[in-house]
Amino acid sequence: MHKLLILSRHARDYHRLIDAAALPDLAVTSATDPADATARAFDCDLALGEPSLLRRVLPALTSLRWAQATWAGVEPLLDPALRRDYILTNARGVFGGLMSEYVFAYLLAHERRIFEKRASQAEGRWDPTHPGTLRGKQIGLLGVGTIGAALAVTAKHFGMRVKGYTRASEDSPDVDAYFHSPMAEVRTAFAADLDYLVSVMPATAESRHIVDAALLRELPAHAVFVNPGRGGIVDEPALAAALAEGRLAGAVLDVFQEEPLPRDHVFWSTPNLLITAHTAALSVPEDIAPVFIENYRRLLRAEPLKYRVDFDLGY
Amino acid sequence: MHKLLILSRHARDYHRLIDAAALPDLAVTSATDPADATARAFDCDLALGEPSLLRRVLPALTSLRWAQATWAGVEPLLDPALRRDYILTNARGVFGGLMSEYVFAYLLAHERRIFEKRASQAEGRWDPTHPGTLRGKQIGLLGVGTIGAALAVTAKHFGMRVKGYTRASEDSPDVDAYFHSPMAEVRTAFAADLDYLVSVMPATAESRHIVDAALLRELPAHAVFVNPGRGGIVDEPALAAALAEGRLAGAVLDVFQEEPLPRDHVFWSTPNLLITAHTAALSVPEDIAPVFIENYRRLLRAEPLKYRVDFDLGY
Repeated sequence: MHKLLILSRHARDYHRLIDAAALPDLAVTSATDPADATARAFDCDLALGEPSLLRRVLPALTSLRWAQATWAGVEPLLDPALRRDYILTNARGVFGGLMSEYVFAYLLAHERRIFEKRASQAEGRWDPTHPGTLRGKQIGLLGVGTIGAALAVTAKHFGMRVKGYTRASEDSPDVDAYFHSPMAEVRTAFAADLDYLVSVMPATAESRHIVDAALLRELPAHAVFVNPGRGGIVDEPALAAALAEGRLAGAVLDVFQEEPLPRDHVFWSTPNLLITAHTAALSVPEDIAPVFIENYRRLLRAEPLKYRVDFDLGY
Repeated sequence: MHKLLILSRHARDYHRLIDAAALPDLAVTSATDPADATARAFDCDLALGEPSLLRRVLPALTSLRWAQATWAGVEPLLDPALRRDYILTNARGVFGGLMSEYVFAYLLAHERRIFEKRASQAEGRWDPTHPGTLRGKQIGLLGVGTIGAALAVTAKHFGMRVKGYTRASEDSPDVDAYFHSPMAEVRTAFAADLDYLVSVMPATAESRHIVDAALLRELPAHAVFVNPGRGGIVDEPALAAALAEGRLAGAVLDVFQEEPLPRDHVFWSTPNLLITAHTAALSVPEDIAPVFIENYRRLLRAEPLKYRVDFDLGY
């Protein structure tokens, strides 16, 4: 018999969805509050929940074998001070669609000048300014995992050319040209002809501040940077400076070093910057529960679990 | 020897592109002004240009056998008072990509609340409002020609369900359910569960005011109407009333009964309405010249021309 602790803001939804799957040999207990969960954690060999909540109950999970994170990013569980004597899997393969909607909403808004045209309308002005098109434009993806691959499919759908920056993998057939780390060696070749730079990299030691003054200097002045991934990959003062000096046409940021974005942060007054509040791709229990359910069935069959996190790589 | 009259605002581009194709047995003369063209028209058996310009030179084109329109809509040439003793072909198969960019720019802007989130940012407010998603939503297409079929492909890419209203054809595999004219018989079944209604119908007697009070009443109050097609298909006062009374969540219009939209038109003060200035899919010589070139080669081989317009149907 396995025992699962669900610790999530959406614990009730997860409990209902997992009950509905009628998984064999599984008892389930659930909580929304780490304090409630701690007392019940000692005999749970499985856990499911938000990394920030699981972190707090980790010491009490003395029987833990496997934890399934409901997020893609698992930074709270990567702290070297924390135990790593269990299998950690994250949520992958479910955010590609929402991330594509976010990224291409803003790419199309930029090409079609929808903010400018709305401003013309507000002035009662018939505005025949020609819109641009994504067709033939170049997009550079920082990171080509399952999310990057989904973005590449959408980019191809709209007739774009796709460049991908990865550690080593070349898995997506929709990427036209791959560039591999270290960034210092490929920076110009990767960035100098991009119309759009989009980061979907995990937060790791290697990706920290990968979007820095040097990379921003390589981008054409008409380029737009979109970051729905992780805030730590951006040197924020360098980005603010590039936008303020007109060396970059725009940026769309969903993630930041500190969230919510502090009230005195330079980004609130940076020109040509659009801010969204870490809502690009929200974890929905209806999407994540099936990831747990498939992995639980693999566990019963003694097969390797999907989306296992390498604690050293950080993803 | 064939002789082609190019009469277009972009005459110089068309002349250059057609010269570059080195078509056999073809002499070319070009003009941007119908008055200039008239004197040279008498021995031209072929014509290429904007329908509104070609209309003015039609009486002088005494040798005309074939005219290639640079637009999809050919209303200026459909007037029953005008001659119809020539083959008229229009521009098709080239607007699908741009139309998809236009329509999905606004669909994604609506789901992702990009105007609202920008307003929050302007107030310095971190706005965690959940965005919507296109996935699982229903789109209804009024007209499923080459443009409608292209929209259906993009809708499927984003996981939408697609309903198509046509005269009789069921040619697109990306349409999940077809509904056929007359509208009065299918109105409820077609419209009552739509999230988005998009018209790409040609302007014909049958399509006139097809988006009327009766059809608007069937749409759910959360629905959004997008019209990048032809202004004549909309009963404009009925649409303004539906928006003003909150019976429709929004509309995005690129085309109008009268363009530019008159300064005293009710649409300038209608709520939840976005106006663009007939720029959804502009004819680009680089796209249209190949349509002429392919058709000219068909003419030389005595094959049927592509995209022939039926003067009675109007498309």
